[in-house]
Formats: sequence, C-alpha cells, structure tokens
Amino acid sequence: MSYRELKREVYEANLELQSKGLVIYTFGNVSQIDRQKGVIAIKPSGVSYEQMQADDMVIVDLDDNVVEGSMRPSSDTKTHTHLYRHFEAIGGVTHTHSTYATAWAQAKLSIPCLGTTHADFVHGEIPCTAEMTQAQIERDYEQETGVQITDCFKQRDPMASPMVIVAGHAPFTWGESAAKSVYHAVLLEEIARMAYLTRTLAPSGSLLSQAILDKHYLRKHGKNAYYGQSS
Amino acid sequence: MSYRELKREVYEANLELQSKGLVIYTFGNVSQIDRQKGVIAIKPSGVSYEQMQADDMVIVDLDDNVVEGSMRPSSDTKTHTHLYRHFEAIGGVTHTHSTYATAWAQAKLSIPCLGTTHADFVHGEIPCTAEMTQAQIERDYEQETGVQITDCFKQRDPMASPMVIVAGHAPFTWGESAAKSVYHAVLLEEIARMAYLTRTLAPSGSLLSQAILDKHYLRKHGKNAYYGQSS
Amino acid sequence: MSYRELKREVYEANLELQSKGLVIYTFGNVSQIDRQKGVIAIKPSGVSYEQMQADDMVIVDLDDNVVEGSMRPSSDTKTHTHLYRHFEAIGGVTHTHSTYATAWAQAKLSIPCLGTTHADFVHGEIPCTAEMTQAQIERDYEQETGVQITDCFKQRDPMASPMVIVAGHAPFTWGESAAKSVYHAVLLEEIARMAYLTRTLAPSGSLLSQAILDKHYLRKHGKNAYYGQSS
Amino acid sequence: MSYRELKREVYEANLELQSKGLVIYTFGNVSQIDRQKGVIAIKPSGVSYEQMQADDMVIVDLDDNVVEGSMRPSSDTKTHTHLYRHFEAIGGVTHTHSTYATAWAQAKLSIPCLGTTHADFVHGEIPCTAEMTQAQIERDYEQETGVQITDCFKQRDPMASPMVIVAGHAPFTWGESAAKSVYHAVLLEEIARMAYLTRTLAPSGSLLSQAILDKHYLRKHGKNAYYGQSS
Repeated sequence: MSYRELKREVYEANLELQSKGLVIYTFGNVSQIDRQKGVIAIKPSGVSYEQMQADDMVIVDLDDNVVEGSMRPSSDTKTHTHLYRHFEAIGGVTHTHSTYATAWAQAKLSIPCLGTTHADFVHGEIPCTAEMTQAQIERDYEQETGVQITDCFKQRDPMASPMVIVAGHAPFTWGESAAKSVYHAVLLEEIARMAYLTRTLAPSGSLLSQAILDKHYLRKHGKNAYYGQSS
Repeated sequence: MSYRELKREVYEANLELQSKGLVIYTFGNVSQIDRQKGVIAIKPSGVSYEQMQADDMVIVDLDDNVVEGSMRPSSDTKTHTHLYRHFEAIGGVTHTHSTYATAWAQAKLSIPCLGTTHADFVHGEIPCTAEMTQAQIERDYEQETGVQITDCFKQRDPMASPMVIVAGHAPFTWGESAAKSVYHAVLLEEIARMAYLTRTLAPSGSLLSQAILDKHYLRKHGKNAYYGQSS
Repeated sequence: MSYRELKREVYEANLELQSKGLVIYTFGNVSQIDRQKGVIAIKPSGVSYEQMQADDMVIVDLDDNVVEGSMRPSSDTKTHTHLYRHFEAIGGVTHTHSTYATAWAQAKLSIPCLGTTHADFVHGEIPCTAEMTQAQIERDYEQETGVQITDCFKQRDPMASPMVIVAGHAPFTWGESAAKSVYHAVLLEEIARMAYLTRTLAPSGSLLSQAILDKHYLRKHGKNAYYGQSS
Repeated sequence: MSYRELKREVYEANLELQSKGLVIYTFGNVSQIDRQKGVIAIKPSGVSYEQMQADDMVIVDLDDNVVEGSMRPSSDTKTHTHLYRHFEAIGGVTHTHSTYATAWAQAKLSIPCLGTTHADFVHGEIPCTAEMTQAQIERDYEQETGVQITDCFKQRDPMASPMVIVAGHAPFTWGESAAKSVYHAVLLEEIARMAYLTRTLAPSGSLLSQAILDKHYLRKHGKNAYYGQSS
C-alpha cells in the first residue's frame, strides 16, 4: 500500500468519527499501520475535521519519527505506536472522548458485562487501566498511557477485547484496520451507554451469566461462529 | 401474497428500524409470516441496512428450513419461528437492541406500568423473562430464547401485551404484521425511556392505578374503544 | 376569524409539535378557540402528522358537539373544552406525552422551581394534579381530567403558570393562542429535563430563592417588565 | 474594526449558539468588545435567531449606554460590561442556558475536575458562584450577577478558567473573541454532561489527580505547550 492510499484510509476513518457523533472540534484521532513498511499514518494534531485533507495525515515510523508530512502528528502518537509495537495483530487504533465511555473512564471503573450486546463484541469486562503515577507522567506521558493499556492485556487477548478505557481520561479501541477500530469505538460508546443506564436503574444488579457471555461471543467469533454470511 | 411481496414488506419494515433510530450497523431483525403458505421472510444475518436489498430477505418455513434465498437467515430465526408457532394471532416479529429497553433487560427487571403512555398500548407490566439456564443454552440457544418468552405468556394474551424483554439480552415485539411489530418496538423504547426516568427520579414511586390502566387500555382497544377514526 | 383560518392555525400548531420533537406517531393534540363564535378547532383522533391536512381539523362547540368536520375529534376534546370554559383568558391548549414532563407526571411530583429558566416562564412550581379516583374515571374520564387540572388553579393564575402535569398521565399547557400553547409545551419539556438532571445530581438541593424567582418572572412579565422589544 | 464588522462577528457568533444546539427560541446572548473604541456589540433582547439580522446587534459603551442601534440590548448587558471592565484580557462573552451546565448551576455545585477532557481546557474546577442576596437583587440584578462572577476570580486567572456557572441560573463563558467564547460554551456543556454522568454513576468517585490535571492543561497551554500546529 502506498503512503497515499494509507493516508486516504486513515483520513476517511477520522471523518467517520465525526459522522458517527463521537467527536467535537479537534477531539479524537485514528491511525493505521503498514506492517511491511513499518510506518503508520495518523491525524495531525489540533486540526478540525472540516479543514482536514487526506494529504494532511502524517506518516510516522514506530520510533515516532515523522517520515512524511508537513504537519505535527497527533499529540497522542506515542500511545498509538506503543500499541502497534505490543499488539502484533492490530492494524488500526482509535482514540476518542466519546461521552459515555469517558464517563466510565472518569469514574475509574471497568465496564462489567451486563448483556449480550456487550458479549457479542467483547469477551468479558472492558478494562479500566490503573491511574498513572507522578513518576510516569514525568517520564513520558503519552508513552506511559500506552504502558497502562498494555498492562491490562498481559492475561487478555487484545483481539477478543478490542477496547479499553484509560482511568481519568477516555477510551482507546483497535482492530484489523483503521475502519475496524472506529467500528469498535462506536460499539464501545453504545455498550457504555447501556451499562450506565443499567447501573443507575439497578445499582446492585447481577452480571450476565458466564454461560450466556461465552455463547454470544462464540456465536460471532472463532471457528464455530455462525453469525453473518462469511464462513 | 407472493414471496416477492412478502420480502418487500419485510425489507421495508427492517429499514424502518434504522430510520427510527432503533438499530446501528447490523443490529436487529424483522420478519413476517404468510400463514397460508406456512413460511416467513426474515432479514439475512449480519448484513448492513445500507447494503441490504429486498431480494436478500430469506424465506424460511416453520421448521427453520430455508425455502428460498441465497443468504443465511438471521441467527435469531429460531426465536421468530418459535413465536409464530405459539402465538397464532401474530403476523410479524421484531428484535432490536434499542438502548432503554435493553437497559431494562440488562437490569433483569420487568417494566412496571407507571403511566398512561404505557397503558395505551400494553395491558399491564412488560414482562422480563427468566434467565436462561446452562442446560437450555447447550440445548438450542435461539429456540430456548423463544421458550423463555412464551413461558411469560401462559396467563397473558400476547396481543394485549405485544412486547417482552429477554433477561440479559434485549426486547422482542410482535403484531399483526412486520410493520406493526416495528411500531411496537418504537413504542417500547419510548415507554422504557420514560420508565427509566421515572424510576431514577422517584425510586419508590407508586404504579399507575389499575382503574386508570384499564381505562386507557380499553379506550384504545376492544369493542368499546373510542380512540381513532375506525369503528 | 373564519373556520378555515382557525383550522389552518390549529393545523400548523399541531405540526409544530412534531417538528419540535415533542410527539411520535399520533401522540399529542393542539386546539384553539374562537371566543366570539364559541367554538374550538382541534386535531382529529388518531391521525398521524404526516397524513393530516388542515381541513381535517374538527370544529367543536364548548358543549363538545361537532359543528363541522367529517372526522372524530381528539379523544381528549372534553379536557380541552373544560379548560376553555374555566380559564377565560386562554386561547389555545396543547397536550403532549413529551418525555421528561411525562416522567415527572409518572413520578406524581410537581416540578419545583430550581432555576431562572423555570422562573422566566412560570411563577412558582409547575403543579402535578391529584390522582383521579375510580368514581371520577367512571363518571367521565376526559372531563374529569380537566377538573383535576382546574382544581390546581383555584389559588393560582393560569396565565402566570401556563402548564400543569396530570398525575400518572402527561402535561397540558395553554396560552393566548394555539401557537403560544405549543411554545409553552416546548419550554415545559426543557424545564422538566433540567429539573430531572438537577434532582438526580443533587437530590437534596435547595430551591431557587423566592427573591430571584420573583425577579426573573417579573423582569419578563407584568407592567415593569424590561425583557424583549415590546413596551 | 468598524461597528459594521463588530456587529457581523457578534451576529455570527450568536448564530453559532443555535447551530451547536445550546439555545432554543430567544435564549442566550453573545457579545464582543472593541477595546480601542471602548464599546461592545451585543444581541438585542428577546429576538429569535431566525429573525435576527447582523444590523440588529446593538453597540453599547462600558457604562451601558446605547451608542448605536434601534433595538434594546440584551437584558443581561450589564453582566457583560461588568466582565469586560474586570477581565482585561477577554474579547468576547457568551451566556446560555445549555442543559447540563444549567443543571449544575441549579444544583448550586462547582464542576469538579474529573477527567482530562476538562483539564484540557480549564485549569481546576469550574466555579459556581455564591447565591445572590435579596439586597443585591434589589440594587441591580444584572450588574450584581457580574459581581458574583468576578468574586470567584479573585485568586483565579479568568483566561485559565474561561467559564463559570451562576448559582440557580446558568453559565457564562468568555475568551479572546466572541467566537472563542462560544467555543468555550460548547466545551462547558460537554464537560458538564460528562461530569453529570460520572457523578451519577459513581457518586463518591475521586477527582483527577493534580499531576494529570496539570499535565493536560499545560500540554495545551503556556510556553511549553505541544498540542496543535502553532508554535
């Protein structure tokens, strides 16, 4: 894939953030990796969705050096590259401050699996990271945001749980491509909204049973999946 | 009615789900039965509303065999056919994960009748099914979802309460046709939203009196109804 | 004003209910009175906003007799005529099931005056009626709904508090014209939403002080008003 | 800048209030100052956004005298001029009754800093003023609203916290220009909404750590800022 094509796909995925109502002004950013070339394309920092052009996407290598582009890349770039270095199966990353997912992040709570809408897409709770320490903030804030995330996935498959919420901050999602990571950002926001409503309606309600959780996840994912047209 | 006409009506009812804001991506499905031919038309599994064509609807008999169509029917097909076999008066079935109705399902709570908006359309509470057991899940998950629903209607007329919420999952609604089942899905979402707001505002508030509940239901339904233009 | 003009104004006010997002399907109804002729025009019962024509509005006298029109008037007509008979200064009446106002009605709570947005338009709390008794329901449900409302205004000026919520049911609003009653229905929904958010955020928060309440109401109403361009 | 240009900018900023969904009917008002000429342009009182023309904006001096314009200026004008007299760095002021910010005002609570979305734009909590006394209301209500606001900023830099909520009333925001003050009004509403959701989900949750709060504010503001393209 040429840089031009990579930038076009990332540009369109960023615009999708806005058309799905997940971002206002310059909030949010999406990237996609070309594993062969070892580079990502990512949204430039602080540019509005209305003004942005495909060619404004910035090409950055996995050591955070700008390879092509006249603009400064997203201030969250080091979080993205950290995720690409540690999650080898992912092809795209999305960061938003979508309202309900951010409310869970601000409450510093993982999102429990309360229903099949959640279980259809994520195998278990959506983890909330630990809070960052003063030492981490001073070391390298954006890189350490990535560390907080990957620390949650030591015992967890990032492709079976393609989303996380960063304590006090907001969500990150990923997938096989930029477009798939945006799809997961939209699903997370809806799951977070349903979980908010469920918890405020019935604060001590029980979780979805593990049996139904497994059933719903596995009818959509894995070798015996039977949802959809592909098989 | 020809298969072509049946598929057209089901296709339009599915599109209505999206235009009313009840579904995102491939969520949800609507079916309609031709009682004379003993077949239903239903949305194909995992196809987005943007790409779907009328001819993609799948014709299935009441034993869940595909009669016509090149695509796989909705993964929830067995729940639909179970309902058609047990509720003889119904002509259409809708399944969504609409936000507020799903929050009640996730809270595993029936929706109490708190006001006349509810009583205008449903005669009594909107039941929440029991949770499914491990044995049921292993036997036949989608069929057993239907069993959970029909178990709620042993003492209840499904035409006077054309909606249910499945514990941990989401709502199903029905009616004389696919279009009428979608209409009930929209009403359920609004009733669920009002009930959520009422309960979080006044957690220990009282129910609507049985007298007003009966009055409102009966001024719209039954032989002495006087709402609307038909009589 | 001719019947034709009266029906046109009522028709447009009904459409405004839909464009402001206060109603779905056939919910809601608006009327306006011609005091000289002693008749009102009102929405026909159970007709959708898309299909409705100006000429479908029904002309009814204050004894609830249809004077002109081929359709049946709104099932709530007797509540409207009761209000016109008892509130001599009003020219239009609106009934909706708008979401937040209906949640307060279902909670059977008056809306306390918590801020200046409320005080700008209503001088004091927005009353919630008493619940209707079985005897009232059997006597004449729609007429008695009017009685429940006027009973709240024995010590209150209906023009200084142009809105009410009926316990277990939904709001009614009024004003100098049909259009003004719809304006009050929109304001009520916004006031009800803000009050819901305030109460769920701070359940034991204090009311707006009487001094600010009076100040805001009186800077917009009465002989010393100084808001707006007319004076 | 000519009066004509000043009025044009203020007119467009007022329209932006409506297109961002912060106001209904005649709610809200925006002004901008020309420091050299010592005048502001402000929305006229009680005029709807649909009818308003650029030339309807009113030119007022800092002693609240109308300098140019045939309409009466916003009833909140004295609050605006008080802010311009006391906050020397500001160029524009916005007042709305946006829903979530107003709910915090009605709850008479400052908005605590719960996450980085807040810290990106405001350095610390968003203060809620004290309630106004009877004596203040009688003296000069709109002027004293300004006093309540500036009293919150004796120890606080108004440019680092460009927003406030007035107890029992609603928010005011400001910035270098009218457009920037509207931008802050939109951000405040989103911050207020997220904080509402966070507090109702986890009423006793902890604040954002001071270290992250400082980090986020300072990566966007001050001499070492590295967000965006300008530097």
